[in-house]
Amino acid sequence: MDTLAFVISVRSGGTDVDEALKTFIDRQRPILLGIADELEPLVAALEALLAGGKRLRPAFCYWGWRGAGGADDQAAKIAAASLELLQASALIHDDVMDGSDTRRGRPSVHRRLQTMASDHRWPGAAGPFGTGAAILLGDLCLAWSAEMYDRSGLPEAALQRGRPVYDLMRTEVMAGQYLDLLEQTRGAGGVEAALRVVEYKSAKYTIERPLHLGAALAGAGEPVMAALSAYGLPLGIAFQLRDDVLGVFGDPAETGKPAGDDLREGKRTVLIALALELATPAQARTVRRLLGDPGLTQTGITDLREIIVGSGALDSCERMIGSYTEQAGKALLDAPLTLESRTALAELADAATRRRG
Amino acid sequence: MDTLAFVISVRSGGTDVDEALKTFIDRQRPILLGIADELEPLVAALEALLAGGKRLRPAFCYWGWRGAGGADDQAAKIAAASLELLQASALIHDDVMDGSDTRRGRPSVHRRLQTMASDHRWPGAAGPFGTGAAILLGDLCLAWSAEMYDRSGLPEAALQRGRPVYDLMRTEVMAGQYLDLLEQTRGAGGVEAALRVVEYKSAKYTIERPLHLGAALAGAGEPVMAALSAYGLPLGIAFQLRDDVLGVFGDPAETGKPAGDDLREGKRTVLIALALELATPAQARTVRRLLGDPGLTQTGITDLREIIVGSGALDSCERMIGSYTEQAGKALLDAPLTLESRTALAELADAATRRRG
Repeated sequence: MDTLAFVISVRSGGTDVDEALKTFIDRQRPILLGIADELEPLVAALEALLAGGKRLRPAFCYWGWRGAGGADDQAAKIAAASLELLQASALIHDDVMDGSDTRRGRPSVHRRLQTMASDHRWPGAAGPFGTGAAILLGDLCLAWSAEMYDRSGLPEAALQRGRPVYDLMRTEVMAGQYLDLLEQTRGAGGVEAALRVVEYKSAKYTIERPLHLGAALAGAGEPVMAALSAYGLPLGIAFQLRDDVLGVFGDPAETGKPAGDDLREGKRTVLIALALELATPAQARTVRRLLGDPGLTQTGITDLREIIVGSGALDSCERMIGSYTEQAGKALLDAPLTLESRTALAELADAATRRRG
Repeated sequence: MDTLAFVISVRSGGTDVDEALKTFIDRQRPILLGIADELEPLVAALEALLAGGKRLRPAFCYWGWRGAGGADDQAAKIAAASLELLQASALIHDDVMDGSDTRRGRPSVHRRLQTMASDHRWPGAAGPFGTGAAILLGDLCLAWSAEMYDRSGLPEAALQRGRPVYDLMRTEVMAGQYLDLLEQTRGAGGVEAALRVVEYKSAKYTIERPLHLGAALAGAGEPVMAALSAYGLPLGIAFQLRDDVLGVFGDPAETGKPAGDDLREGKRTVLIALALELATPAQARTVRRLLGDPGLTQTGITDLREIIVGSGALDSCERMIGSYTEQAGKALLDAPLTLESRTALAELADAATRRRG
C-alpha cells in the first residue's frame, strides 16, 4: 500500500469504505443476475476495478463531514463511498475515450470485456463489443452512485442538503472532461487553459466538492464551505500537478501505468504546457513531434523527459506544487473545523502531494 | 406530427413536457456557460436532440400518475419529463455504440460534434472528439435526469416512493442494452433470446416502469402496480415489434431513419429471428450473408424484405403485435384505474402499435 492509501485508510476508519462498496454490490448483483446470468461479467469487471483506487473522494467527503461536526457514522461513510462509483464511471468512460489499455495496473474495463468476447470466439467484432459494454457499465456505475447515496441510511433532510452539491459535482466533472478533450483536440492552449481543465476535472471534483458534500450532509454553513474551498481548491491543483509529474517520471510499479503513458497519449497537462512555454523553439518542435505518438519509444520518452527537465518546466511545476500545497496548509490553520479534522486534512494534503503512485 | 405524437400531445396536456424540458435546460445552461463558453455546443446538441421524440415515457409516467388518482399537476409532469433526459442519454450512447449517423432525422450527436471539430480544422482527430464528447454529453443527460426529477417540485415523500422504481428502470435498461449487444455479438440466439432483450430494453423501460413511476409518485398500492404491468408489458412488446417492422419496411420520411437501417446495422430483432426460423436453408444463408453488411444496397434490402415476407415472418410478427396489443387492451378493462386514464391508455396503445413512424 502506498503512503497516500495508507494515510487515507487509517484516517477514514480502515476498511469501512471497502465494506460499504462490497455491501452495495452484493445488493445489486442478484438484481442483475435476476435479469440474466450473462450479466455476471459486468459485476466482475466492476469489482476488479473497485479493488484498486485510493478512495480519495470518499476520504475527503468523510473529513468534510467530520470537520463540520458530523459523528463517526456508518451512514455517512456509505454516502461518501458512493463517490467511488461515480469515479468508477468516469474512469471506465475515460479509458474508452483515451483507448487506454490499462487502469490501476490491470486491463481497462473495455479491454477486459473485449478479451472475453475474443476468448469466446463470438462471430461479432470483439473491439466494439468491449467498447459498448464498457459504455454501458460506466452508465450503470453513474446510476448506481446516486442509488448508493440515496440508500446510505442518512436522514432524508441530510440527503436533500447534499443533492445540490452532488449535482454540481457531476456537472463540473463532465464539463471538465469535455474541456480536457477539447484542449487535446484544439492543441493550442497554454498553461492557463490547462489550469482551467485542472480546476474542474480535478481540483473541484476530487477534493473541493467531496469536502463540500460531506459538510453539506452535516449541515455546515457558508463559513465552513468557504474554508473547505480555501483548502481544497489549491490542494486539488497541487494533487493534479503531482499526477502530471508522475505521468511522465513515475515508476510504473507504483503508478500502475506504463512508463511515459501520458506522453504517449499526448495529454496536454500543465507540465507539458510549461515545457512548451519554457523550451527553445527547437525543443518545442521535438515536443510537438513526439507528444501523442502511439509508437513512442523509450528513446523518445527519454528525449521528452530531458526537455521537460532541461527547460526548467519540472522545477517550475514542483514550485507550483509547493506553493499550492502551502496555500492549502495555511487555509487550514484558522479554518472553522474540528481540530481532529484539521489534523487529518493536513496529513491528507501532505500524502496527496508527496506520493509516488 | 404523426398519430402517436398527436395522441400523446393531446393526452398529456399539450406542450407541458416540452415546456418542462425547456425550463430545465434554461436553468442548466448558465451553470455550464459559467464554467466555460466552450460548453455551448453540448447544450445546442442536446436541444437539437430533444426537439424530436414522441415523449412516450413521460406520457406513460403521467398516465400512471393520473391512473392512480394523481391530479393534473405541473410537478408530476416535470418528474415525468425527466425520463426524456434519461432517454436522451440512452440514445446518445446507443448511437455511439452502433456508429449510427442519424437520429430522429438529423445527424446523431457524435456525428454533429465530429463535424464541428472538422469544420474548425482542429489538429486533433475529429472522429474520437465526436465520440468522446457524445459519451460525456450522454453522461451529463443521465445525471441531469436525476437532477430534474429531484427538482420537480413534488413532495419529498412522493419522490422517495418513486426512487426505487427509477433505480430499477435504469438498471434494467442498461442490462437490456448489454444483452442486446451480447446477442448481436454472439449471433446465435433465436426468437426467445430476442424477446428477452425486448422485455428489458423496451417493454419495461418504455412502458411498464414509466407507468409504475407515475403510480408510485401518486402512492399507488400493489393492485394498481400489477394492473399497470398487465397492460404495460404486452403493450411494450407489441410496441417494439412494431418498431422492428418499421426498421425494415418503414418509410424514411416517417421513421427519420434511412430505409432498411436495421438491416444494415445487423440488428437481431424478433422479426429477424422469426425470419431465420421460418426461412428455407438457402434463404437463411442469404439473410446471414446480407444482414449487418455496412454496404448493403437497395437490391440487398429488397432481397431481405422478400425473404421476411415470403417466409411468413412478417405475418407472424404482425400476429404477435395483434395478440400482445389485445392482451394489453383486455388488461385495461377491469384495471383499478380512473376511467379517464383507462381511456387515455387505450388510445395510447392503439397509436403505439398502429403508427407508421
